[in-house]
Amino acid sequence: MTRRYAILAPHRFETDAKTAHGVIRYGSDDVVAIVDSALAGKRVKDVLPFLESDAPIVATVPDALEYSPTALLIGTAPKGGGLPADWRDAVLAAIDAKLEIVSGLHDILGDDREFRFRAQAAGTTIWDVREPPDVPLFSGAVYDVAAPILLTVGNDCAVGKMTVSLELVRAAREAGCNARFVPTGQTGIIVAGWGISVDRVIADFAAGAAEQLVLYAAHEGADLIVVEGQGALNHPAYAAVTLALMTGCAPDAVILVCDPRRTAIESYGTPTLGYAELVELHERMLATVKPAKVLGIALRTAGSSDREARAEIERATRETGLPADDVVRFGPERLYAAISPVMTKGSPLRAEGPHE
Amino acid sequence: MTRRYAILAPHRFETDAKTAHGVIRYGSDDVVAIVDSALAGKRVKDVLPFLESDAPIVATVPDALEYSPTALLIGTAPKGGGLPADWRDAVLAAIDAKLEIVSGLHDILGDDREFRFRAQAAGTTIWDVREPPDVPLFSGAVYDVAAPILLTVGNDCAVGKMTVSLELVRAAREAGCNARFVPTGQTGIIVAGWGISVDRVIADFAAGAAEQLVLYAAHEGADLIVVEGQGALNHPAYAAVTLALMTGCAPDAVILVCDPRRTAIESYGTPTLGYAELVELHERMLATVKPAKVLGIALRTAGSSDREARAEIERATRETGLPADDVVRFGPERLYAAISPVMTKGSPLRAEGPHE
Repeated sequence: MTRRYAILAPHRFETDAKTAHGVIRYGSDDVVAIVDSALAGKRVKDVLPFLESDAPIVATVPDALEYSPTALLIGTAPKGGGLPADWRDAVLAAIDAKLEIVSGLHDILGDDREFRFRAQAAGTTIWDVREPPDVPLFSGAVYDVAAPILLTVGNDCAVGKMTVSLELVRAAREAGCNARFVPTGQTGIIVAGWGISVDRVIADFAAGAAEQLVLYAAHEGADLIVVEGQGALNHPAYAAVTLALMTGCAPDAVILVCDPRRTAIESYGTPTLGYAELVELHERMLATVKPAKVLGIALRTAGSSDREARAEIERATRETGLPADDVVRFGPERLYAAISPVMTKGSPLRAEGPHE
Repeated sequence: MTRRYAILAPHRFETDAKTAHGVIRYGSDDVVAIVDSALAGKRVKDVLPFLESDAPIVATVPDALEYSPTALLIGTAPKGGGLPADWRDAVLAAIDAKLEIVSGLHDILGDDREFRFRAQAAGTTIWDVREPPDVPLFSGAVYDVAAPILLTVGNDCAVGKMTVSLELVRAAREAGCNARFVPTGQTGIIVAGWGISVDRVIADFAAGAAEQLVLYAAHEGADLIVVEGQGALNHPAYAAVTLALMTGCAPDAVILVCDPRRTAIESYGTPTLGYAELVELHERMLATVKPAKVLGIALRTAGSSDREARAEIERATRETGLPADDVVRFGPERLYAAISPVMTKGSPLRAEGPHE
């Protein structure tokens, strides 16, 4: 059954609500209202026209009930993953109104005694999307997957790896390829309705989780598997998750996703790497496990003019020799066309794993 | 109070009991008996003379009680980390004899209802060494640590990173330096009595755990901090943990630990890397976060003659230009002497973090 979401993002909907934006743009469930008192009275299309969707923005959860939601989605993924203390009352109001609570936070809301008790009393449920299942260790079975595996990587967190993955899957499907999106983070899971939040898996098992996701997509009969990447290879806090995906998914090829305005890793002083260094470093690391090439670069140029965006795209190509594009601004078709000859089942260009 | 350990390692003590060997050689607690029916009647010094210790080997836990143990230590770290099913009776016999159970397994024995109930009934406790505390995200505070930070890395798991770290700390202390060993795995924690099993931390927080360990050692007043590394940078399953330590500890320098006989990553077909490539790859990755050099190479040459060992040590130096040694066979003094000029508090050669 399709959910009707009210999305909770007080004071953050416009600037810092990646989960909300992803679900509005790509989710199969409906979004009927946004709760953000700072923007109450406006509509989504007034604030974020690029989402190509619309819904009213209201001040409180009780205000949202007018639009008959069936679920409350926690709309942000704050650093550290906790529920802001002043959001508790909104969650409790939603529980008491019998809404399902859907959360991608690190804090497991179902472990909170008050939330759990109130949800049981109200006869509703809490879906903690980020809580991973038990997974086995990495086994190497992924080396035998027949379908080509594409992984997105990037110059930082939150630069558009999920979006690029979803847009490439859309282009592939429109071209007649049975492509599957593999979600590895909370928003992707909420969008797709399955997946594992790999950053939440015990470190020893993170590569195993990535492998299981690819095996599942292969089992479902995908002709092309596109894995949402996480973090960045030189991220001081999250590089481990990035590398777990690079080894665990055993990609045949990689798409580099960059926001060129990021000169330092967000929240840390670590400088981001340039296009050519990113290409070289990812290929260098992948070569030590299962060789794979960077096939193209997807840029996030939001906030630039079309002309500035094209200049940045040209620069990325000039510095690396690779096709580049902004798949949100200009559509995913050109980048997909550039990579699709390699990413075809049975292509002789596919990389080989150490077990093959 | 010092523990008196009986160590459980049925059919594995000689070949596959890393935890047992580490505690016997380096632990501050006493080892009074080994339980391994395959070797019953022999003594530790007959089977593994290099441990420079001695204890009787007996067939069963009841046999071990004759030596008045106060704790039963699970002596191995099998792949996947589970308790072999046919060891349950031995653990229950120890619980019923009021021994403390000390385990570094991934399976948390205290979560097992039967073990927990029987331990409560017997009035004893279960210490699951691998269960990590809650840790914060990586913050960058480690960049302000004044003491030099040395991290061991390697060409595979189980090649001697803990041993080399402990031997270098011993050499440093004998040279008058207040060095501290930082344990990151179950054996190291059992040996040192503190630490975090970083491979057991949720992936997002693994670098944060590494940072907290270094901050703790610094807070204790160490003049040199030597961190036990884990895994290998091209390990298909565990590379994420390796990289979490490389970013989270923010080392000023690295010691490369290699078993030259490993031509492929254990249990996987991935080829191990040569000395020069390992040096280059680690320095390359560290340069993207906080630059640090490989200062020396520690080799595990067990099973070779002294002459073969010296030839391998010379080869490592010839291929990299770095000092090399087997710190178990020839002692840690030479390798420590080679690296100590750089690893001194206030040395101008120390690397700088991006926040400094």
